[in-house]
Amino acid sequence: MRNIKLLLSYDGTDFFGWQRQPDRRTVQQVLEEGLGALTGVEPSTNASGRTDAGVHALGQVVHFYTASRHPTDVFVKALNATLPIDVRVLGAWDMPQAFHATLDAKAKLYRYVIDNGRIADPFRRRYSYHVYQRLDTEAMQRAARALLGRHDFRSFETNWPNRTSSVRTIASLNVLRTGDSVAIEVEADGFLYNMVRSITGTLILVGLGRRPESWVGEALAAEDRRQAGPTAPPQGLFLVRVRYSGQSGNDS
Amino acid sequence: MRNIKLLLSYDGTDFFGWQRQPDRRTVQQVLEEGLGALTGVEPSTNASGRTDAGVHALGQVVHFYTASRHPTDVFVKALNATLPIDVRVLGAWDMPQAFHATLDAKAKLYRYVIDNGRIADPFRRRYSYHVYQRLDTEAMQRAARALLGRHDFRSFETNWPNRTSSVRTIASLNVLRTGDSVAIEVEADGFLYNMVRSITGTLILVGLGRRPESWVGEALAAEDRRQAGPTAPPQGLFLVRVRYSGQSGNDS
Repeated sequence: MRNIKLLLSYDGTDFFGWQRQPDRRTVQQVLEEGLGALTGVEPSTNASGRTDAGVHALGQVVHFYTASRHPTDVFVKALNATLPIDVRVLGAWDMPQAFHATLDAKAKLYRYVIDNGRIADPFRRRYSYHVYQRLDTEAMQRAARALLGRHDFRSFETNWPNRTSSVRTIASLNVLRTGDSVAIEVEADGFLYNMVRSITGTLILVGLGRRPESWVGEALAAEDRRQAGPTAPPQGLFLVRVRYSGQSGNDS
Repeated sequence: MRNIKLLLSYDGTDFFGWQRQPDRRTVQQVLEEGLGALTGVEPSTNASGRTDAGVHALGQVVHFYTASRHPTDVFVKALNATLPIDVRVLGAWDMPQAFHATLDAKAKLYRYVIDNGRIADPFRRRYSYHVYQRLDTEAMQRAARALLGRHDFRSFETNWPNRTSSVRTIASLNVLRTGDSVAIEVEADGFLYNMVRSITGTLILVGLGRRPESWVGEALAAEDRRQAGPTAPPQGLFLVRVRYSGQSGNDS
């Protein structure tokens, strides 16, 4: 069997997230159906991680096993010809048998986009969260420093209190303004459920001046979800890219 | 009665165009309903021109008469609080009684956006037309020169043959590439039905190398819709701005 890796982009608006569910349109479902039509056998796919309903991907990584002999570029072209237009295959690669898109992911980069114009931009409403009061992004950036490094992030996890480890390492967290658009980019070795969205909801309160910069570190140290800010809505969140070690094949 | 001018932006995806129609969701309908809720009387609004189903506006201009005493900034804030999120009021101004958004429009600028990437961008599918073969934008720009100035544009009008004048003056027509995105910007004193979309469909054939540059001028001279190219789909089209003379009040 071949082990094929796909790089996917999808607009999460009309999907109930990545993972298959009965009677729901999900990315995994339309992808596996498309692969079934192409190869004759519907495979089980594994993604680098689940994305929630309404969350987007610029570079989701998926792998699956197949006996198909199609060249990899056929997977790209034929899938894009049959898949719905809100999901696109950006690339396909043959991988070593051992490669696993979920287990081998070393780091992921997520971006949360805020429309910070006085009046919401109708063309960005599906791809951002509108906050009309001007955000102090420098205060947000300074406050975010407390989150860098290895910590127990259970204050930023929706399933709090969980029963497994909520220790993760954030390698970088940048708050970037371009005109009326603010992006929060977080790279970590892994993410808890709703972690970027709750970090965003927390940093927004600092950016609005409703909480001091020092509060973010205090909320982290509390290890209690109720001490941090609200969970920002899904439509601003993008999975930008997933990194794998050189051992596991080419970088995406 | 006050004569108020509004500047509107709307995402045309979920509207059946500007103009009111029975049992259809249109921009005029939601705007007039919103104005009725705000002022107590549902006014009749006039726009600079109709936009078709699926066509977007960055700067549509509308006017209406009202006895309301609300300051103009209340029109902006209160309407944006009640209107659906796919239409936004960007500004409101008190105008002289004589101002008429349709009749006084001196020029309009439309932009048609083409996603010219090899693989369609899922995030631009509602706001562009995907053409995967690389377009020769320099050839399109040269070919477009034949359309500049005052001509009978009935070759680029869907309702051909019409019974009124189809003479218009194109002041500028630019084909601009930014990475994988191609924009065709047309400014004219007025537009026929589907004029920008049929000009776009025609220039695309030149950009693909299927027709010579000289064909555009020949299609124009034929004064026959069947001699020009197809009508490009609506979702790539944006009404960018409308110009009025100084006499009719402030420029938008």
